[in-house]
Amino acid sequence: MSILITGAAGFIGSNLAKTLVDDNKSVIGIDNLLRGSLSNLNSILDNTNFKFFKEDINNYGSFKDKVKNIHLHDPVTEVWHLAANSDIPAGIADANVDLTYTFMTTFNTLKLMKDLKVSVIAFASSSAVYGDHGKNKLHEDMGPLFPISNYGAMKLASEAAISAAVESDIEKAFIFRFPNVIGTPATHGVILDFIKKLKNTPNHLDVLGNGTQQKAYLYVDELIDAMLLIRHKSNEKINYFNIGANDAGVTVRFIAEQVVKVVSPNAKINFGDENRGWIGDVPQFSYSIDKLLSLGWRPKISSSESIIKAIKQILINENI
Amino acid sequence: MSILITGAAGFIGSNLAKTLVDDNKSVIGIDNLLRGSLSNLNSILDNTNFKFFKEDINNYGSFKDKVKNIHLHDPVTEVWHLAANSDIPAGIADANVDLTYTFMTTFNTLKLMKDLKVSVIAFASSSAVYGDHGKNKLHEDMGPLFPISNYGAMKLASEAAISAAVESDIEKAFIFRFPNVIGTPATHGVILDFIKKLKNTPNHLDVLGNGTQQKAYLYVDELIDAMLLIRHKSNEKINYFNIGANDAGVTVRFIAEQVVKVVSPNAKINFGDENRGWIGDVPQFSYSIDKLLSLGWRPKISSSESIIKAIKQILINENI
Repeated sequence: MSILITGAAGFIGSNLAKTLVDDNKSVIGIDNLLRGSLSNLNSILDNTNFKFFKEDINNYGSFKDKVKNIHLHDPVTEVWHLAANSDIPAGIADANVDLTYTFMTTFNTLKLMKDLKVSVIAFASSSAVYGDHGKNKLHEDMGPLFPISNYGAMKLASEAAISAAVESDIEKAFIFRFPNVIGTPATHGVILDFIKKLKNTPNHLDVLGNGTQQKAYLYVDELIDAMLLIRHKSNEKINYFNIGANDAGVTVRFIAEQVVKVVSPNAKINFGDENRGWIGDVPQFSYSIDKLLSLGWRPKISSSESIIKAIKQILINENI
Repeated sequence: MSILITGAAGFIGSNLAKTLVDDNKSVIGIDNLLRGSLSNLNSILDNTNFKFFKEDINNYGSFKDKVKNIHLHDPVTEVWHLAANSDIPAGIADANVDLTYTFMTTFNTLKLMKDLKVSVIAFASSSAVYGDHGKNKLHEDMGPLFPISNYGAMKLASEAAISAAVESDIEKAFIFRFPNVIGTPATHGVILDFIKKLKNTPNHLDVLGNGTQQKAYLYVDELIDAMLLIRHKSNEKINYFNIGANDAGVTVRFIAEQVVKVVSPNAKINFGDENRGWIGDVPQFSYSIDKLLSLGWRPKISSSESIIKAIKQILINENI
């Protein structure tokens, strides 16, 4: 029996694949390697429990054939669907990006599951499905859901397609609404941005927005721990959970200061005027993880500790 | 200045087009005529204030060219996007149906609006975005939103794409969450089904489900009246409203009895065992229209009166 991971060479997919293979699970990884990288999977590429295919899910016939070949003698029992565009501003500039990589990948993954009769999906959704609720705490059952980015819109569209599929073809769905996840191998994100900027101009760091944007950050190991706990402890038809740090988060100013401290201690930090960095960026939100806490999960480190740990790991990973 | 209506030859689109043209508005109608029919527009086809194009929105280049030609000398100031698949069971059998006709039509309509800089959209959404909340009253701000049909899923996906567009390209959106709308020219629906069945077998009427499913029904004239009132009275960036009758609705048994009474008074009605008619059918729900009532709108007739009126009108329209 195998577990299929889409987006397996990406930031979160590669960490999940390693965790499952280390736990002696048989894993099939699929990735189009547009944003993911094979080097992220170096430690398990030779493991007999891991099979990797470079394939685009939207190239449906070929995607299906590759999975089916394995499925026939080693049945796929569940799919962890993590493939998505991860560049939110790119999706705002061109709506086709999130349509294609964030939504159609889900649509075609559900099609595969129907065709091969795979009954369990675990899906990487996002806090972006909620849109901007000001300072109201975001909890799983709140509405209305009006995302302010195409990324959030296509994650919500994916959730909707999954919930319709649960009514007809699929037995069980796990929907994880991610917060900002940090760690390695980072492909994007505020920490990597700041490090790169400081490498270019060690004397100053220009920050989009006024630095007061505050968000909770979760270290990737914690995220995977939480997802696996939900997978094993929750038993509804649709199991939907916010995942996040158990605190109010940290400001962009804090992150900028921490990166400067380690990378270029004498750099001057210049802030902008706006309280959001780009269209589609939610300026501030607090995230309820009460539902997840009620399953018994506790994050082991805080948002601020996660930021400090991620800065160190990214610097090691990027050989800086 | 023109108003563009997509799905203009359909049940609701044709009624809306007639109402706007009668009000001396300049209207452009687009329809692929897959489910809509040109005969629905007979009374306005020769009106100089109305222009009709047979075109599929997903045939984007040609769709855009046709609208742009008019837009250059008679600017389109708003789009009423009503084009969608209206056959829910067809969309459950094949997820491509609602992807193509319910969601991609919205995606491409938004693309057109961005390309031509049209800033106001009015969108025909659906109570199906809510999914099954048991006996809880459905209000606009409730969650979670887990539709149980691909139709509901792709309506929710459309809402999400619109809300993301409001953040970047569009100024204002009106989202109308329709109940069951009845009247003429009906292309589908429970009343037409029952009439057709009785014409085939006048001695008996077989009903899917046990007849206890209860829903509110709104006559199409009332729906259009409510939409236009919302359009003129509500002034948020995203104006989202349930529209419906101001009552708990009627059962399938009531509808069956009313149709039998008029069409074939001696027919025996046979009910099924289940409390839902088909996968994706929500068995019972009550629908809050408090937000709409607070704008000052009142339905002029009840669900049961609407059913009786619709039976009469459909029989006239179908020449039965």
